Amino acid sequence: MCQLLGMNCNVPTDICFSFEGFSARGGRTDEHQDGWGIAFFEGLGCRIFLDAKPAIASPVADLVRRYPIHSTHVIAHIRKATQGGIALVNCHPFQRELWGRYWVFAHNGNLLDFHAQITHYQPVGQTDSERAFCLILEALRQSFPTGKPLLKELYPVLRDITALIADKGIFNYLLSDGEHFFTYCSTKLCYIVRQAPFAAAHLIDEDITVDFQKLTTPCDRVAVIATTPLTDNEVWTQIHPGELLVFQDGLPYKF
Amino acid sequence: MCQLLGMNCNVPTDICFSFEGFSARGGRTDEHQDGWGIAFFEGLGCRIFLDAKPAIASPVADLVRRYPIHSTHVIAHIRKATQGGIALVNCHPFQRELWGRYWVFAHNGNLLDFHAQITHYQPVGQTDSERAFCLILEALRQSFPTGKPLLKELYPVLRDITALIADKGIFNYLLSDGEHFFTYCSTKLCYIVRQAPFAAAHLIDEDITVDFQKLTTPCDRVAVIATTPLTDNEVWTQIHPGELLVFQDGLPYKF
Repeated sequence: MCQLLGMNCNVPTDICFSFEGFSARGGRTDEHQDGWGIAFFEGLGCRIFLDAKPAIASPVADLVRRYPIHSTHVIAHIRKATQGGIALVNCHPFQRELWGRYWVFAHNGNLLDFHAQITHYQPVGQTDSERAFCLILEALRQSFPTGKPLLKELYPVLRDITALIADKGIFNYLLSDGEHFFTYCSTKLCYIVRQAPFAAAHLIDEDITVDFQKLTTPCDRVAVIATTPLTDNEVWTQIHPGELLVFQDGLPYKF
Repeated sequence: MCQLLGMNCNVPTDICFSFEGFSARGGRTDEHQDGWGIAFFEGLGCRIFLDAKPAIASPVADLVRRYPIHSTHVIAHIRKATQGGIALVNCHPFQRELWGRYWVFAHNGNLLDFHAQITHYQPVGQTDSERAFCLILEALRQSFPTGKPLLKELYPVLRDITALIADKGIFNYLLSDGEHFFTYCSTKLCYIVRQAPFAAAHLIDEDITVDFQKLTTPCDRVAVIATTPLTDNEVWTQIHPGELLVFQDGLPYKF
């Protein structure tokens, strides 16, 4: 399967530290070496870096590790192929446009016997993941044909289509349009919120420590979401299986 | 306005040489410094590198200059903003999915008083270019709702919608789905086909020469399309205003 990394913040922040540890799992400290990708929202704009090479051997991943891109909504993925060959077309995150906004999606899991009828959005690659993404967007579009609704209206539609797809197997995902940041835990997903007073954090996958107190202002707040914790000296919160969280400004949203 | 660079080949080829000269126009030898982008098709897959920084000052452009990505269909763009602010969301190329394929589009020109009615594809940014792209895809989708038709059926529909949009101003563009490579000349666009016997080429914008004979096999064929010639020792062919060419395997297609 794969691993997910997400970030949602109240001010644009770079993900270099977390991506350093995460990308090590793309062939060095773990076996997810069938491609990788990362999406950065910058306002309504979005750019996605993709490579079918292992994250530890990709010059593009090297750029992402070294070049601090500041973003409030980031979705990253390292792949261990289940369905669909090792190819650029099957690398996550996937992107489509809905309601004049870019939507980005990455999946960790495996959906069996999943053959949804989709008319509006067609998958380009061969993964169950991209098909699930298309089905989610199709459901949202059908429910709200004229434009993005309020979160309280969107949420139950997303929760219902998610439950329908999750019935087919393992379906942990990250989904964002640059405004809202959705995380669904089917089996395994956790998060941490970093805010003042900031402390030092030490990666699990590399012997690297960052003292966030030196890099932040007291108002900053950053949520990092990952398949498994990225640091060994902080307390990560497990998301419950079946739970669909929405992050905003670096915090899970309270309905 | 902007400048365009495209490449279409019969075998996957890197664009480092052409991009070296082209990207120099993004702030050093010319004034197109309001962002840039480049799309590489790899099979059905596609990856787009974008940056709102000038191409000469962008770490991402630096990667593209140094890291040879092999592709048969490449579309690049350097921007001098006319409509829409300097922002990632307004950087070309733009991408959408149609018929289970990614479509990529970049535009050089300016469309005045252009307010098309579009339902299926919505622009995310504020450019006339992205709106035109959405309108093109809408027209193709409406004409062929079930899937991609033969080129001879697609071509006249694309030609007609192109003519309609070109009435609104300057509309040079590159458009591809990784299979076909369309180039439309409204005012300024030229190309060169490199094939055996290969020779050396010298850039206009940098004092760099490459001897293609040393880098190619006798079967290779590469078409490079650009707003203005990139080399000063080769003969480039001007595309006629109003002409919509289709490149395949490094040659303009003969109907």
